[in-house]
Formats: sequence, structure tokens, C-alpha cells
Amino acid sequence: MSFMEQIKKRWISNNTLLCVGLDPDLDKIPSRFREMEFPLYEFNKYIIDATYQYVCCYKPQIAYYNGVGKERDLELTIDYIHSTYPGIPVILDAKRGDIGSTAEMYVKEAFSRYKADSVTVNPYMGGDTLQPFLDQKDKATILLCRTSNPGAVDLQNLLIEGKPLYLHVAQKAANEWNKNNNIILVVGATYPDELKEIREVIGDMPFLTPGIGAQGGDVEKAVKAGTTPDGNGMIINSSRGIIYASNPGEAAKSLRDEINLYR
Amino acid sequence: MSFMEQIKKRWISNNTLLCVGLDPDLDKIPSRFREMEFPLYEFNKYIIDATYQYVCCYKPQIAYYNGVGKERDLELTIDYIHSTYPGIPVILDAKRGDIGSTAEMYVKEAFSRYKADSVTVNPYMGGDTLQPFLDQKDKATILLCRTSNPGAVDLQNLLIEGKPLYLHVAQKAANEWNKNNNIILVVGATYPDELKEIREVIGDMPFLTPGIGAQGGDVEKAVKAGTTPDGNGMIINSSRGIIYASNPGEAAKSLRDEINLYR
Repeated sequence: MSFMEQIKKRWISNNTLLCVGLDPDLDKIPSRFREMEFPLYEFNKYIIDATYQYVCCYKPQIAYYNGVGKERDLELTIDYIHSTYPGIPVILDAKRGDIGSTAEMYVKEAFSRYKADSVTVNPYMGGDTLQPFLDQKDKATILLCRTSNPGAVDLQNLLIEGKPLYLHVAQKAANEWNKNNNIILVVGATYPDELKEIREVIGDMPFLTPGIGAQGGDVEKAVKAGTTPDGNGMIINSSRGIIYASNPGEAAKSLRDEINLYR
Repeated sequence: MSFMEQIKKRWISNNTLLCVGLDPDLDKIPSRFREMEFPLYEFNKYIIDATYQYVCCYKPQIAYYNGVGKERDLELTIDYIHSTYPGIPVILDAKRGDIGSTAEMYVKEAFSRYKADSVTVNPYMGGDTLQPFLDQKDKATILLCRTSNPGAVDLQNLLIEGKPLYLHVAQKAANEWNKNNNIILVVGATYPDELKEIREVIGDMPFLTPGIGAQGGDVEKAVKAGTTPDGNGMIINSSRGIIYASNPGEAAKSLRDEINLYR
């Protein structure tokens, strides 16, 4: 089943738009994991077992593994999700973007090596650099559009013929690049007006929405601005707010329920 | 010595602007390397030993290692360059870009784990995502500006107040982000008019220029458009044209000499 089919199914079967970001920092995880052979994997397993009922997908951020040489922990984590909880797809958050021959290697990294179901990609280099990802019909390509950080305005909000750059990205994604219906857009929760503006332009293309929690995004405003008329269409990520909670299962359930209040 | 000091010294001491891209594809390297324990490293060692006199730096593209689980080969390669040929700095071509906490992990990846001297970064997410890189004063941050691929026009050439996006990036780099004098811009050889236009705007900030060789960029036009008045200011990359040449040393010498003709 493709990523798009899996995520749509999961939104309904488990009544959840919540994605948990698996971004474990070796310095921050409980000390009992640190002595283990695969500390990040063991920590992730604990988080996954506590939260799987409440999520539509998981999103490991690859920097947390590459930065400390823990590639094996990432492989084991994705394999654990697929084998233990089939039906929950995995987004590899890597924000890749490079010319064709290199992009092919990144496709190999995300889908052959790590066996993710979807990967985040940066659009700055243009359509030809996205094509190797888009050609993977069953995988989703998640394009940065309007990110959740304060500096996002530096480039993304520059006006081109009266419209901000992020809207041009959204329109190119919807009108030119989405031949396989496998694009998702990253639109942060921190700017609900822009979530709404982009939603109006692109129809029911899903959003991956970071920025809830540590980054200050408001759940009610984001959900109301970003969901499609059927109350779906969003993958709402929380990382630190859940993985470092004293009870990650409770934190995930509580955020899922809060999101559902406004769908 | 900082990356900037090293590269400036090397331009003169070895009279070269050439950078060799270490992008070894397991399927394309000679079969004698493939049976070795660290095939990409052994291949790189062969390339480095043959070309070191002719280069100002090396640039491994991380996708070629991550895609096939050869992180150790990359670590060994960078360590080999530093220990065997001190004075030749290394650019890790990774095109990273993410929010602060994640960017910190990418800084760790490039500089603590791989011990590179410089890293390529994507500006789409804005200034705050660049800061963790820029804060490393002795390392250079190499920002994508006008890339060499055909699709680069999709976003980079959109006009904002009459000026293309890539010029806005160049100006922000020169006027806002370069407090530590450690920014370099990626400007492709395939569009010499744009190399010239950017050079006029940013003074003597160095360029990293891909696009010679396999991508079709013209050496004479690129060098004349992109060098600073003293004939320096560029790091001109060639990957496939050198590493897969029957005699990589000869290929590197010949391209260095061709570049020097036009400085």
C-alpha cells in the first residue's frame, strides 16, 4: 500500500492526525538507555510501544542519528515500526535536495537503505532535483513550503508578483510536480493564516505540520486552518513534547484528543 | 588555520582553483576496489594520491556514502586527507538545512563526526537555520545561491522587486549573514552571466562552482566571469570528469591548467 493510502486509512481507523517525531538526543534520553548497545533504538522502542495507538505515522529526524554515528539505530527503529505495527508509515525527515545523480543516491538512502515510506525534500534547487523522489510512486515526497521557524520569512515570504515564494512552491507542487499524486507540503503550525491561505490554493493535498509544542504553535488555530473539509488532510508532528514527557503515551493521547476537538 | 585561510593559501601555494569531488559510486568504481573492506575509501585514496598536487580542496558528496551505508569510508577518507596532505581543506557536500536544534546536530555531523572544514547548506529555511553553521568561525558555510542544474530557474530565478531570488540570497549572505567572514556561495558554471552578476554584487566572497564537465559548463567563461580581480575567489569543482578518468592525475592537472589559462 502506498504512503498516501496508508496515512488516509490510519487517519480514520485510529482517528488521529498525530505524528510523533523520533528525534532522540543522546544527552537528553533517560540514562538507563545510554548504556545499551543501541541506545537511540531502545529509547525509540519505548516511545513507539507507548504511543502507537495514537499516531498516524512516525517521523525520525535523520540528523539525530547521523550526528552521532547511530545509523544502525535508525535502521532498527524503522524496521521495528514496520514489523511490529504494520500499517503505520514512516517519514524520514532529511530535507534532502541535490542534482539528479546525487538525488538518486538520496532516494536509495531513504527507501532502500532505511526503508522509509516517505521523505522530506527541500525545493530550492527546483523540479529536476525533485523528480527522482517523485518517481517513487508509492512513496510520498514531502516538500518544504512554509516552515515553522522565525527565519522562514527571510526567503519564503519574499513577494513575487504579489505572492509570497511559499505560495509559488505550493502552486508548482499542485499544478506541475504532482503527476503521481504523492506530494505533501510542510506548512508550520506557527502561522495559521498561511496554513489557511495555502489550503485554499492547493485543494486537499496533505500537510505535514510541525511547530506545535516547543515551537509555540496553537493547536486549535492550526487544525481549523489546515484540515480539509472532512477533518483530515494533516499530519501534525510533535517531537520533544512527547518523547521527553514523563508519560509519553499520555502525552500523545492528550495531544491527539486536543487535535480531534477541532477537526 | 580556518578554512578561508587554508583555501586562500592553497590557491597561491599550489596555483590552483580546482576542487575534486569525491563522489564514488560503488557500481562505477573499478572492480579491484569493490572486494576491499572499505571500497569507497580505497578508491578515494587512489584518487587523492593521484591528484593532491593539483587541488585546492576536496569535496566528498555525503549521499554517495549514506546511500550505501559507507559512513566509515567517509570518515577514513577525510582523516586520510588531513593526516597525509595537511593544508588541503575538505568540504562536506551535504546541503543541510533545518531548524536550530536539528541544525546543531548537523553541525556535529560535519565538524565533530566527519571533521570536515566546511559544509554546504541550503538557505530556503532562512537565517536562523544557518546560524549554528555560521557560528563555527573557523569553518566555512557554503550557501546554495544559483545552482548548476536546469531546474534551478524554477525558484532561484523568480523575480522579487525586479531581482532574481538568487541575488537576494547573495545580498543577504554578503550584508546580513557574513559577520564571521566565513560564507562561500554556490554558483554554477553553467550560467556565466549570472556568475558575473553575483560577483558584482558581493565583492570578493568566494564561489564554489560546480557544473564543469559532465554538466556542460564552459571553463573559460566561468573563470572569466567568476574570479576576483587577483585571479582567485573560486573553488571550481569537477567530480565525474576526474575520478572516472583513465588517468585521474592527468585529468586533474589538465583541468587545473585550463582554469589557470583564464585567471
